[in-house]
Amino acid sequence: MTRLQLTSLIRSTGTYLCVGLDSDPAKIPAHLRGGKDPVFEFNKQIVDATKEHCVAYKINTAFYEADGVKGWATMERTVDYIPKTHFTIADAKRGDIGNTSAQYARAFFETLRFDAITVAPYMGEDSVRPFLEYKDKWTILLGLTSNAGAKDFELQPAGDGPLFEKVLTTAAGWGSPDNLMYVVGATQADAFTRIRSLTPDHFYLVPGVGAQGGSLEAISKKAMNKDVGLLVNASRAILFASPGEDFAAAAQKTAAQYHQEMIQYLKEV
Amino acid sequence: MTRLQLTSLIRSTGTYLCVGLDSDPAKIPAHLRGGKDPVFEFNKQIVDATKEHCVAYKINTAFYEADGVKGWATMERTVDYIPKTHFTIADAKRGDIGNTSAQYARAFFETLRFDAITVAPYMGEDSVRPFLEYKDKWTILLGLTSNAGAKDFELQPAGDGPLFEKVLTTAAGWGSPDNLMYVVGATQADAFTRIRSLTPDHFYLVPGVGAQGGSLEAISKKAMNKDVGLLVNASRAILFASPGEDFAAAAQKTAAQYHQEMIQYLKEV
Repeated sequence: MTRLQLTSLIRSTGTYLCVGLDSDPAKIPAHLRGGKDPVFEFNKQIVDATKEHCVAYKINTAFYEADGVKGWATMERTVDYIPKTHFTIADAKRGDIGNTSAQYARAFFETLRFDAITVAPYMGEDSVRPFLEYKDKWTILLGLTSNAGAKDFELQPAGDGPLFEKVLTTAAGWGSPDNLMYVVGATQADAFTRIRSLTPDHFYLVPGVGAQGGSLEAISKKAMNKDVGLLVNASRAILFASPGEDFAAAAQKTAAQYHQEMIQYLKEV
Repeated sequence: MTRLQLTSLIRSTGTYLCVGLDSDPAKIPAHLRGGKDPVFEFNKQIVDATKEHCVAYKINTAFYEADGVKGWATMERTVDYIPKTHFTIADAKRGDIGNTSAQYARAFFETLRFDAITVAPYMGEDSVRPFLEYKDKWTILLGLTSNAGAKDFELQPAGDGPLFEKVLTTAAGWGSPDNLMYVVGATQADAFTRIRSLTPDHFYLVPGVGAQGGSLEAISKKAMNKDVGLLVNASRAILFASPGEDFAAAAQKTAAQYHQEMIQYLKEV
């Protein structure tokens, strides 16, 4: 999916919501647990219930890997089930020396056919470039994350500003707004104006709305650009809106609320 | 495996070699390719041929994930096959917000039963701590890596020194030399004296010998401490010492050469 296509999709549907499939097997409603692949059944019902309210799904690989081979099979079935109209993100935080990153790119872009993958910047250009080399695929580099640990290194001084700013501006030279996005946490609302000034044209994947406490309104008002430039992710707030048999209906209701809010914010740009 | 046990193992065997199972399916010798699980058969023969010359095996998850579910099954079979006498490392470079890192820890420490995992530091303390919480398991944090991209961020000024020094000293406060090691690339020999002064008691996992050009002699002389404190990894130089039917014999010969060299260096500490 190109940047133009992604922006058009957001404009036509009125949503820039990404639903995060952090489908913790321990939190799957009890009535699904007897089945052959409870996590897939859960994901399937979540996708069916939310697809009209989002443009993207993000699969957090950790929750699948925790179940080993069986979990990877569930991940494969899930990504295959997501409608081709939607943008798919492997939230994998990978990154290694060049020949190894090339294998990760093959795993997530070819074998699993995701549209995008999240990548960690620490090891520098040759650890990121193999992902950028895929046509029509996206690299989503960690910029400023939503967790408390962001203060340990990301926010520490490095040259003229904090480390995450060096990451944003350095990596901007490796890719373009057409194949590179950044992760910027919703809990970092104060930083969004500055971040947008540094990277005016890039899309941001914004986790941290919902369970982590970030404000959809604040980030939408500060960080939207003329192409929208935002995919806002919610995971736990949607998946586990209800712990019971009505989980899918509850997920739909929560996703619809985000959608309604987003329709309003989209009118402003 | 505790630090004392690891040091004893190195002293009794005369080797601190780690064999990296970066088993690229495209490079497996032709005569193995018709089998049911060629990569596992390759790994099995490599392990049989090298186990007397090494104390550890490192599985690079990228090369398995590239084949999806099938690759994960091969990884599981391989880690099960490695003798329990040997230290096992998942070279996975994981790291995410706390609840997600906890799932990665479960994947690699519980489901796959590795002794250790490599972790990326960018997201800070809460992204690393879930790994450190496992008793008798090891977190191997990226410090200064062996690739060219190390110059982009790791070697950039951050406070009183380069970023990687801040990572080493900050993370030293999260764990102890009994559950935390660092990745320090063999190609960074000039930096080892300084790094050892900052972290006198920690073990280092040192990739970059062999295909990447690092010198075993230089790093051994500069970085060994009283507990040895080194696991030196070679991957391609051993796995693909010969592309033909004699690959296992060639791997053994190369591993034995490293072993002989290491016996000499161990006499000096």
